[in-house]
Amino acid sequence: MKVEKTRTPVTVAEAVFRVTDRVCRTGTERVPLHASYGRILAEPLTATHDVPHFTRSPYDGYAIASADSAGASGSSRVSFTVVDHIGAGEVSQAVISRHEAVRLMTGAALPAGADAVVMFEQAVSEGQTFTIRKAFAPQENLSLQGEDMLAGEMVIPAGRFIHPGVIALLATFGYAEVETGRRPVVGILSTGTELLAVNSPLVPGKIRNSNGPMIAAQLARMGIPYRMYDTEADQLEDCLLTVRRAMAETDCLITTGGVSVGDYDYLPEIYKRLGAEVLFNKVAMRPGSVTTVAVAGDTFLFGLSGNPSACFTGFELFVRPALLKMMGADHLYLPRTTAVLAEDFAKANPFTRFIRAVYDGTTVRPAGFNKSGAVSSIARGNSLIVLPGGTRGYASGDTVDVLLLGTEEGTDEWGL
Amino acid sequence: MKVEKTRTPVTVAEAVFRVTDRVCRTGTERVPLHASYGRILAEPLTATHDVPHFTRSPYDGYAIASADSAGASGSSRVSFTVVDHIGAGEVSQAVISRHEAVRLMTGAALPAGADAVVMFEQAVSEGQTFTIRKAFAPQENLSLQGEDMLAGEMVIPAGRFIHPGVIALLATFGYAEVETGRRPVVGILSTGTELLAVNSPLVPGKIRNSNGPMIAAQLARMGIPYRMYDTEADQLEDCLLTVRRAMAETDCLITTGGVSVGDYDYLPEIYKRLGAEVLFNKVAMRPGSVTTVAVAGDTFLFGLSGNPSACFTGFELFVRPALLKMMGADHLYLPRTTAVLAEDFAKANPFTRFIRAVYDGTTVRPAGFNKSGAVSSIARGNSLIVLPGGTRGYASGDTVDVLLLGTEEGTDEWGL
Repeated sequence: MKVEKTRTPVTVAEAVFRVTDRVCRTGTERVPLHASYGRILAEPLTATHDVPHFTRSPYDGYAIASADSAGASGSSRVSFTVVDHIGAGEVSQAVISRHEAVRLMTGAALPAGADAVVMFEQAVSEGQTFTIRKAFAPQENLSLQGEDMLAGEMVIPAGRFIHPGVIALLATFGYAEVETGRRPVVGILSTGTELLAVNSPLVPGKIRNSNGPMIAAQLARMGIPYRMYDTEADQLEDCLLTVRRAMAETDCLITTGGVSVGDYDYLPEIYKRLGAEVLFNKVAMRPGSVTTVAVAGDTFLFGLSGNPSACFTGFELFVRPALLKMMGADHLYLPRTTAVLAEDFAKANPFTRFIRAVYDGTTVRPAGFNKSGAVSSIARGNSLIVLPGGTRGYASGDTVDVLLLGTEEGTDEWGL
Repeated sequence: MKVEKTRTPVTVAEAVFRVTDRVCRTGTERVPLHASYGRILAEPLTATHDVPHFTRSPYDGYAIASADSAGASGSSRVSFTVVDHIGAGEVSQAVISRHEAVRLMTGAALPAGADAVVMFEQAVSEGQTFTIRKAFAPQENLSLQGEDMLAGEMVIPAGRFIHPGVIALLATFGYAEVETGRRPVVGILSTGTELLAVNSPLVPGKIRNSNGPMIAAQLARMGIPYRMYDTEADQLEDCLLTVRRAMAETDCLITTGGVSVGDYDYLPEIYKRLGAEVLFNKVAMRPGSVTTVAVAGDTFLFGLSGNPSACFTGFELFVRPALLKMMGADHLYLPRTTAVLAEDFAKANPFTRFIRAVYDGTTVRPAGFNKSGAVSSIARGNSLIVLPGGTRGYASGDTVDVLLLGTEEGTDEWGL
């Protein structure tokens, strides 16, 4: 039997910080705007011009000089003559004189001499003239130059996720290319002689490798490229060779399995042979207490548990923030909320417990069979309930912390 | 001036249902497991075998016959002899006789004759023997065959989003390929003579097209392919030709701009020329009341407002559920929650108002400048506050509905 010193568990928060504290940026890369969704801004997004960059009409209507509307009322309507007609994108050559107006569409630039817009529904028109029944104030019904953003203003800081709204801004300011955090290439190595490929028939004692494809999808969800590695068997030397090769070819390596203290758990020995610094090899959490993170040279080695739900959780808690920080992100952690527990969870929690769960915006309930090693609950949930260590169990109606995972799916009821 | 009948606004819910009621499936396509993330399951995921498919040990330890442990206590320890030693993936050839045991690792199949597992920490071992101080019950410390899922069980229904957890299940059951809803190809056509390409220098009266790239990113977020279309100018005939071409080349077409009643708003006339059925052309919402959805033959025509925030919201409210339904999804609507409004929103809401906002898991606040036509707030928010029509304004501390948009980004504080 192997002898190993008793491992000292660290708290989940401590484990997370040990990882994120040590991660280094992978550098930047310039990508076309249309390929930038899901990446991280490497430079602040600065306004290259005022928005709007000219004062414009927010309505279809008539541009007038407000002074000309003075005294207008229902019993004493004031009349204007239309001298030009422009759509959005056009600039009128007219300069408005007394009681003249330019008919213009939403988004069109305000003509010279005008300082207010009469909406169509505020006017009674007839041929080339119209009348109004109220006085207009200077700047009434205008979108003023710079009212949304000013040239030179820092609009979005570096480190932010590029979502569709950020892309709208980048387009507005003419960023046809965007400087973004380089996406790390991640290696995936599932260890365990019990593992069969997805397309293999089952044989007694063995199971198909579900962790590898699952992690690949967790990476795909983040837009991160990966390489799959394979070992022939749970042989230490073979496994070590594969790890070395993966380290040479990728920015970081995720292994599954082999991190516990079992007779064939080679990862602790591999970290030793590599001279890797083990940041932690025991976390006060369930599942996944044996999750190990080590650093060899510049390369992070994430040793996730082979237990599917522990593997899933370990990725989201430790790998995800590390990869985001490598890309320069400033929002590293899963979105979080609180919800009302919809059923009892009676088990005591000596360690912090992460329970795959279904969150509906108000309540949250465990996603079915929750025993260690269960696979079904991973597929059925969209969130993780977090029950702090040192607690005695929870009752239906208690408010609990929830980490959101699957909000890309949405809900089956409109409900509004 | 064009004459148009007064448009009759429909509620947002009614508009959503008119769209989703009419959408047809785009068919299915078979994709490799590794390419299935983000797609929609076209067939139920059925368990092809029990999980676990053999009774196994959830711990590193010793497999015994529980009957042999009868009477064990601290003062009368019972001893066992280890007759075999297996790791996960191995099957012992041993059949346990009285007071024999097989040393086995987590995940290994239970040997013949055994019906319980002694964890290492429950045993005192010495050479090829160990002793225990308590009796074990039948099935103690076992993962029983089929306890998680049974062969033939429908585990995930058709119509579900394929997230990493679903992929773990698909891998478990040997689905190397997955039947999924075919992704529609979407056309994007931004109309408006005021629009410049992203790489064009600004000229007076014009703005860069931000809606096209934004919609492309909203589609990219859903994994849906698109084609960009362009018209030379706001000319009706030219625009009609482009729309016809796009309809021939795509499954549905999103236009931006041109749906209002302005002098150059050609979309209403184009719908007429195409003989399209207009499902609605006015929605009781702000922004985006002119949002129009029409159907010509089998093709959906989404006429979004040219106003960036209305365009964004129109996509998320109407286009997103339609595309999901085309792919056969059963969760069509944005994830929703409630939150505490963190600042006053004094404006009355004759129409339902959607306000781009920042949601932090508990509170929600408008994401800055919220005037019609603003671009900056689109980039700064991660959610939409929904304020129902017919309300007088809201105060800080009120609970409001929130639609979640940007949870792929996460948060900057660990907080647990």
